[in-house]
Amino acid sequence: MEKWIVNKRVYYDATDAGGIVYHTEYLKFCEQARSELFFQQGIFFEDGGYVIKRVEADYLGSAKLGDILEIETTISKIGNSFVEFNQKVMKEGDKIFQMKAVAVYIDESGKIGRIPPRHRVLLNLYLQKGEF
Amino acid sequence: MEKWIVNKRVYYDATDAGGIVYHTEYLKFCEQARSELFFQQGIFFEDGGYVIKRVEADYLGSAKLGDILEIETTISKIGNSFVEFNQKVMKEGDKIFQMKAVAVYIDESGKIGRIPPRHRVLLNLYLQKGEF
Amino acid sequence: MEKWIVNKRVYYDATDAGGIVYHTEYLKFCEQARSELFFQQGIFFEDGGYVIKRVEADYLGSAKLGDILEIETTISKIGNSFVEFNQKVMKEGDKIFQMKAVAVYIDESGKIGRIPPRHRVLLNLYLQKGEF
Amino acid sequence: MEKWIVNKRVYYDATDAGGIVYHTEYLKFCEQARSELFFQQGIFFEDGGYVIKRVEADYLGSAKLGDILEIETTISKIGNSFVEFNQKVMKEGDKIFQMKAVAVYIDESGKIGRIPPRHRVLLNLYLQKGEF
Repeated sequence: MEKWIVNKRVYYDATDAGGIVYHTEYLKFCEQARSELFFQQGIFFEDGGYVIKRVEADYLGSAKLGDILEIETTISKIGNSFVEFNQKVMKEGDKIFQMKAVAVYIDESGKIGRIPPRHRVLLNLYLQKGEF
Repeated sequence: MEKWIVNKRVYYDATDAGGIVYHTEYLKFCEQARSELFFQQGIFFEDGGYVIKRVEADYLGSAKLGDILEIETTISKIGNSFVEFNQKVMKEGDKIFQMKAVAVYIDESGKIGRIPPRHRVLLNLYLQKGEF
Repeated sequence: MEKWIVNKRVYYDATDAGGIVYHTEYLKFCEQARSELFFQQGIFFEDGGYVIKRVEADYLGSAKLGDILEIETTISKIGNSFVEFNQKVMKEGDKIFQMKAVAVYIDESGKIGRIPPRHRVLLNLYLQKGEF
Repeated sequence: MEKWIVNKRVYYDATDAGGIVYHTEYLKFCEQARSELFFQQGIFFEDGGYVIKRVEADYLGSAKLGDILEIETTISKIGNSFVEFNQKVMKEGDKIFQMKAVAVYIDESGKIGRIPPRHRVLLNLYLQKGEF
């Protein structure tokens, strides 16, 4: 079991007038981390991709301009056509955000399809048995 | 019990290369709807505001460029310092997104505080007894 | 000669940690205003659309959370395949932003094409002789 | 004379329904590159920062999901209180975007101020004599 880890810097566009990161930006960082996992294998979703069906997110802390965040991604379930991602955003060792995201595979025809074997091999690397 | 309803048009910035609305944009539309509820009463969060603590969201459909969406907001719980919003995004009568968002009041000192009476009166207008 | 006018509220997502509207958001408001001009005629760019080739923008003031901005759009030139838009963002009667945007028409085949007659009739309504 | 270079991946959030990068995202990538230049020196704009006064941008090509872009930044002028940045976005050796951005320094009091010596030393590293 591996974790997929990417770092993200907080720039002005991710902050708001409250002085901290706007709440949807954590979901965006997490999406970028998921996409990067595929991109690094040369998978650019030209034949099919994933859409989000459900998100459960907890905001445990905050981040501000210039902070460097670590996005940790593991996978808790892989079905025929869906994946459940568990993602955490860490700031200097503290967990400031956690999210469960269920994504469904959409094939070339635009319909729900079976996750391709090549994707499945990749996703299995990060499959985590145990607790969220 | 009232519903708070605002309409949002989908422009290019809310869409992505998949041809439909990017998943965080629904949360943004919902946040804009919550803020508008306060703004129309002249409350601009200069003395204190809300931060999101938890989100549960279901993606039930999709929207595309040019669509007009209706954002419906009701409130399911009001505590001393938190509010639980229930929000739906409707497209031509179909529910394409629903979300529960728990927000906590942060006072002028930057700490969790009691929701001000003026806010409470406003929020109570949309308090919904019953099921999500 | 008419002006095309739309109003936009500033919500949290458009602001940044500097406490004011992030600089690209004015361009986004202006793009939404241009798109709305077409959307209201039932033109949703399914057969072809516009891409921006050049922008010149001056930031003359600032806007903050809750402000209502008025986006004024006129057109200074229409060529065979390009349009030059002049846009202003007004706040309580003051011009806080102005932009010239040159857009090129891309037809169904993905190449530069002639602006369709139906678009041309619409754009001509806002054609302004005179100074920027 | 040095160039300041950062790389940016194009994720879903930067693309739109046209299938390519939304026009304001290039300005955002350029802003992130300028900010990173300061962040890497430990300057997080707590005492004062920059606001954009003018932008001139040319869109010369396009980018799509998964592309890796190289943002090159040099500086063409440094005044008492302003800096003029020249920025290019390169994709596989081709220039797809170029921008001139004039930024003004705003000091702690919220007014235009003199660029601090520490900033000036940093900016001078990238000062380019010659052509845009």
